[in-house]
Amino acid sequence: MDFLTSPVRYLKKKQPIYQISTLQSLIMGNYYGATTVEQLLRFGDIGLGMFHAADGELILLNHRCYRILGDGSARLAAMEDRVTFASVSFLEEGDTISLGAMESLDALRGLLDERVELLGANNLYIVRVDGVFHRVAARTELKQEPPFKKFAEVLAKDERRFVFENISGSLVCFYFPQYLEGVNTAGWHFHFLDDACTCGGHVFDIEMERGKALLNKTDRFVMDLPHNQEFQDAALENASKDEIRQIEQGGK
Amino acid sequence: MDFLTSPVRYLKKKQPIYQISTLQSLIMGNYYGATTVEQLLRFGDIGLGMFHAADGELILLNHRCYRILGDGSARLAAMEDRVTFASVSFLEEGDTISLGAMESLDALRGLLDERVELLGANNLYIVRVDGVFHRVAARTELKQEPPFKKFAEVLAKDERRFVFENISGSLVCFYFPQYLEGVNTAGWHFHFLDDACTCGGHVFDIEMERGKALLNKTDRFVMDLPHNQEFQDAALENASKDEIRQIEQGGK
Repeated sequence: MDFLTSPVRYLKKKQPIYQISTLQSLIMGNYYGATTVEQLLRFGDIGLGMFHAADGELILLNHRCYRILGDGSARLAAMEDRVTFASVSFLEEGDTISLGAMESLDALRGLLDERVELLGANNLYIVRVDGVFHRVAARTELKQEPPFKKFAEVLAKDERRFVFENISGSLVCFYFPQYLEGVNTAGWHFHFLDDACTCGGHVFDIEMERGKALLNKTDRFVMDLPHNQEFQDAALENASKDEIRQIEQGGK
Repeated sequence: MDFLTSPVRYLKKKQPIYQISTLQSLIMGNYYGATTVEQLLRFGDIGLGMFHAADGELILLNHRCYRILGDGSARLAAMEDRVTFASVSFLEEGDTISLGAMESLDALRGLLDERVELLGANNLYIVRVDGVFHRVAARTELKQEPPFKKFAEVLAKDERRFVFENISGSLVCFYFPQYLEGVNTAGWHFHFLDDACTCGGHVFDIEMERGKALLNKTDRFVMDLPHNQEFQDAALENASKDEIRQIEQGGK
């Protein structure tokens, strides 16, 4: 089975991570929609990203795409909703890893890093963690109006943080290797959605009672570039790695 | 027409640049074959790269893949020949740009840069230049044996340079944006093959009498990662940008 005789099956077999836009573009303030939810769903059933105008964090789980509002509540996105930036993939069955209590996101990150070191840190990974949490600390952003400010300024003013306590739900986790920093976050990126699909966000920290992780390794990366003029004009090499790290990890 | 109902046509419509491995991996000394010529031809009819064991520069033109030997001569590659690194795409018809005399590769690069600035420097470009040349200065490398040295050391010892005079042929030119430096060369990368398909190489300089350029802009990048253990183990963030630039531009 190969690409030209059966490309759908081949692509699904290859299980690419599909990405729209680059993280650097988002960080520099390009929040214009570059694709739609409908288009995004063609490339994956699990993923994370952000909506047009920085109007909420995006989480794609179980073939459904959710928008996180300013109070941390989740709303099912419409097919025509526009998406600024996202990474998605098709999650496949495989070995699951039983997770005991995790006192922090760093602890989970450490455990996942160990697994990635064994399997090859230069590949890409998709992990779904289903867990019971004492606490999930998360954020989203409020809708911006053009001309858009840089993402660091948006977070300073229009970031909304919330803590969910005693909740069951899923973490969507994507890992990108060092050499793709700027294109995405090098290392891990976590979004959360509760089992009832009522709340979630970009995750800063967790306390997990127990959980299980399903980890997929992938060796194909597909990136589509935005067509908006702001992307064409951006000096994308100017976003610093420190800035990316700071923004993704919540100012730590 | 979309990806899942007609992915072949969609992919061809999107006209991705397909890449196997990363330039950084090659520069750090990973010359193990990561795919075959047969596989590569499924993803493009034009391209450039390098063969297994650094055994010659690769040029793909008119659906045929050539290997440049140590004396600068070109040999049609076998379908089972292994490829370390390559960027390929399907070249589409479009407007051609008539080129007058070009006294250097820098002059051609400048002209192409102007065009890219107009069309958007954050996209990817494929250019074919058919020309009559007073002079083409090129290089290839001699086959290496494992354990492989870093590419800079290979070039110091086993690079072979040659000059072709009064020759007609084609330049295969790929442009990558700044934010993909390391994954590939930011800016332009040129390989040459003469009209008779008898000689070529990685291009350092040209003097062109006249020519025409066919430029394609693309907004999709697809990258497959090698499966060899050396790729899994490499510290890919350690190859410096200066090193990449020096190697690609011939120590200038």
